[in-house]
Amino acid sequence: MESKTRYRIKPQTGIAFELKRGQILRVIDSEGEQVSDVVAFGSGGSGRADASEWLSSGRTIDYNNTIYQTTSHILYSNLSNPMFTILEDRVGKHDFLLTPCSPETFEILYEGHEGYHPSCLENLVKNLERFGVKEDDIPTTFNVFMNVDILPSGELRIGPPLSKSGDFVDLRAEMDLVVGATACSAEKSNNHSLKPIDLKVYG
Amino acid sequence: MESKTRYRIKPQTGIAFELKRGQILRVIDSEGEQVSDVVAFGSGGSGRADASEWLSSGRTIDYNNTIYQTTSHILYSNLSNPMFTILEDRVGKHDFLLTPCSPETFEILYEGHEGYHPSCLENLVKNLERFGVKEDDIPTTFNVFMNVDILPSGELRIGPPLSKSGDFVDLRAEMDLVVGATACSAEKSNNHSLKPIDLKVYG
Repeated sequence: MESKTRYRIKPQTGIAFELKRGQILRVIDSEGEQVSDVVAFGSGGSGRADASEWLSSGRTIDYNNTIYQTTSHILYSNLSNPMFTILEDRVGKHDFLLTPCSPETFEILYEGHEGYHPSCLENLVKNLERFGVKEDDIPTTFNVFMNVDILPSGELRIGPPLSKSGDFVDLRAEMDLVVGATACSAEKSNNHSLKPIDLKVYG
Repeated sequence: MESKTRYRIKPQTGIAFELKRGQILRVIDSEGEQVSDVVAFGSGGSGRADASEWLSSGRTIDYNNTIYQTTSHILYSNLSNPMFTILEDRVGKHDFLLTPCSPETFEILYEGHEGYHPSCLENLVKNLERFGVKEDDIPTTFNVFMNVDILPSGELRIGPPLSKSGDFVDLRAEMDLVVGATACSAEKSNNHSLKPIDLKVYG
């Protein structure tokens, strides 16, 4: 199938767009070792986001009984409706625990950081605004390609993404959606090398 | 310090109440091996929940760099503000990954289940309604005493809570809050024995 729509998300930026039920969103790590924070809201095909139905990490982790979502897993909304099905996954390691990096992320977690730093939260808010999404509507994102291990103590260890140049994940929309996505701004997530993310929409 | 306010949450029910900044909420597993799902919203002391500021699993896990929150950890809101500080924790194992059990939880995860089953989601909604909270506002709850292990594969393993009769957690409110809490309705979370939860408020 040919992709009619392609987007390039430049380093440390984001994008938002509509996705129709049945369309497939391919998230591509074009250069390797980059993370894309993805969030979605129901739209009912209205062209506006319905902020009352959002992609839910908790429902997804719960119903799939795993913190690592991969091929054939369904990503659920807070209302327990399927939002996406993962049709294909060339990497197999994505995070659904952590929120998009925010100005506070750099203050709290980045020693020696000073001044302004771009963030996924800001990039999601900036792009989702025109669909009616506010900052406080943004839930925990599906952090595609983000490589998070959990030690037996519960401590998180963030490693370089396992994705190599050209690796992708295919997400089929199970309802009409408004989707936001970023090329992650946080150096710890992508091995200190900020890169773009490419998206293709099929169907 | 003497507790002026005490609540008993009967098995498979919930409660909601206001908590003022500086007050300490003690969540007590009176009989042992029971789970309490706790959620909170900012209130600004208005007596109403501000649904735009809610307890965030993602921000908390992120900023504390662990999935297991215990003594001295701060529980953050979606706006990166401290909501609670854990002052004392007699158990040391609580879950912040899973959503409150819902009607769909029993359909999807409980083999052979049929018909109506009480759920924490329903009990939170029923009690938080009078503070202006809607079902779709409920985020991933802080599941006090819930014993979830993560296998290296990412799979979750839910065991009986480690809490013994009388064990408790003390949460200091860092802002004016509306709090919802349950005595969990899901048999897998509490070793198939549904029990009450006791709450005391200090200060």
